Amino acid sequence: MEFKTIAFDVMGSDKGLIPAVDAAIKLLGERKDLKIIFVGDEAELRKALTKKKYNPEQVEFLNTTQVIEMTDGIMDIRRKKDSSMVRAIELVNEGKADAITTGGATAPFIAGCHFILKEIEGIERPAFMPVIPTIVKDKVTLLLDVGANLECSAEDIEKFAIMANAYAKAIRGIENPNIALLNLGEEKSKGTEMHKEAYKLLSENKSLNFTGNIESRYLASGLVDIIVTDGFAGNMVLKAVEGMGKNLLSEIKAAITKNLFRKLAALRLRKAFKEVGAKFDYKNHAGAILLGANKIAFKSHGSSDAVSFYATLSMTYNAINNDVLNKIKKVLKEG
Amino acid sequence: MEFKTIAFDVMGSDKGLIPAVDAAIKLLGERKDLKIIFVGDEAELRKALTKKKYNPEQVEFLNTTQVIEMTDGIMDIRRKKDSSMVRAIELVNEGKADAITTGGATAPFIAGCHFILKEIEGIERPAFMPVIPTIVKDKVTLLLDVGANLECSAEDIEKFAIMANAYAKAIRGIENPNIALLNLGEEKSKGTEMHKEAYKLLSENKSLNFTGNIESRYLASGLVDIIVTDGFAGNMVLKAVEGMGKNLLSEIKAAITKNLFRKLAALRLRKAFKEVGAKFDYKNHAGAILLGANKIAFKSHGSSDAVSFYATLSMTYNAINNDVLNKIKKVLKEG
Repeated sequence: MEFKTIAFDVMGSDKGLIPAVDAAIKLLGERKDLKIIFVGDEAELRKALTKKKYNPEQVEFLNTTQVIEMTDGIMDIRRKKDSSMVRAIELVNEGKADAITTGGATAPFIAGCHFILKEIEGIERPAFMPVIPTIVKDKVTLLLDVGANLECSAEDIEKFAIMANAYAKAIRGIENPNIALLNLGEEKSKGTEMHKEAYKLLSENKSLNFTGNIESRYLASGLVDIIVTDGFAGNMVLKAVEGMGKNLLSEIKAAITKNLFRKLAALRLRKAFKEVGAKFDYKNHAGAILLGANKIAFKSHGSSDAVSFYATLSMTYNAINNDVLNKIKKVLKEG
Repeated sequence: MEFKTIAFDVMGSDKGLIPAVDAAIKLLGERKDLKIIFVGDEAELRKALTKKKYNPEQVEFLNTTQVIEMTDGIMDIRRKKDSSMVRAIELVNEGKADAITTGGATAPFIAGCHFILKEIEGIERPAFMPVIPTIVKDKVTLLLDVGANLECSAEDIEKFAIMANAYAKAIRGIENPNIALLNLGEEKSKGTEMHKEAYKLLSENKSLNFTGNIESRYLASGLVDIIVTDGFAGNMVLKAVEGMGKNLLSEIKAAITKNLFRKLAALRLRKAFKEVGAKFDYKNHAGAILLGANKIAFKSHGSSDAVSFYATLSMTYNAINNDVLNKIKKVLKEG
């Protein structure tokens, strides 16, 4: 059997390797054509796996002695040659794995992918692209960049749109994805010089279905397929809606369980709340592809738990399964 | 009786002058020491006021023939000398009113305040500062800038902190307000060069209780009294939480009224939902002071309805009542 193989960097995320292992075991049970190479402290890993049930053919280990810490910078990628992150990226580069998934530090991961994997032809700056849940049933919005490039030129923004357009066509099967630019208001005169210039480039690019500016209040409204922005603003709005979702749901929970009368009524609505909670649970959207890297590379939140890691590993598996990379390359070439 | 007087620009907002008038009449009924000078199309205004009950001593009119439109730019402030916005600002400058409130276009308003009112001594760039509701009971957070200055230097950010610090002390009675810088992560190495420099300046300023970086996910968490940021990022996160709040509440409403069984249970939780809804209703927080302008100047959302205008007029009244401007000047002078 030919396996789809993920090199899984299990070190360097905030909650240790236990949630990473739990998530991997769950997905391995569901996807019999998946192999995971656990990259990290092998002794720790074997201990974590002791009582787990899994098909040993689906599991490999690569023991590493170093860890890229959350506080590490770009250059630590060069210094820590035996870190789980570097070794996992190398596995992909050497063709021993089809994709990498990590919950490790962002900046070193971007640097590692740049140094080791390089970029798709024609792309200079890869972007992190998460999938945002929206209020429209079964509709998601692709948002990029959310933190790989804090300051962007108008040309960078246009490239993000081109890449995401290719992704949405190839992977999500959307024929003519509509694209918006994150900005202060709808008028094309809004924003900084960069935004005005990006608006112009996006409007003039005939291969893109650019619909204009979009305000951050409509981020989760499902109005468009793709929202492009610089990585700083993208990171800001993503975390803002995520935090607000969490805050609001916890406020509602507190309000509806304040006394016995309310608790009894709330019990009858448990399913309703579950439905809404599941829709906006960002744990299910914790992963972001590093779009533009020359291999499939996924980053999960640094604070990922087993649910988040499972979601990111699933996205990684789907990306391999859908032959994302070649499809994007093809669309980029053909326009 | 000495009135507190607001020059109220009722033209140029999205929903026309009816909601503006309704809000004003409501507040006039509650605040007998308030006078409102309605600045705009007097015939329209008198028509809108025909059937309203109010004390005529509390109302004046200033008829104007021009309107600053939402699409107008900075220079239209110079061209449209008889616009309601310009004339209202002039009333304040001439001492005929204590403050201005408008729902008109942002950029012209900032320009008008700059040209006509100038800034408080030592301040070059005023900032819009709304009050953000948080999940902590009775706790709000001041956020600035949210759109007056799209690109800021580290020095601008420090000035925002100094002004907001003075405001929080003087108006909100907080002894030693804690201040955070909006950024991608907590580490001081996060963000652009501007953020790193701003972090340094804020840390070194002994008059400020700077607590470090804060991520946008904690915007409504009530962790700090003041959050400083450039106007673009501030605008992005403000509208993002606002939109997410709206989206999530409407999703929940749909889920709990999906069938009769749920509807009946939901009825019993009506009060609980109202409590949460009221807490996060951004209509009650639609106003922002232009902090740093040399007079009290408030901007309400361009799309303000009567609830929003009422909230902004109330904030304006409170600012006059609390002698905001002199208190800030005093703190700025004494440190």
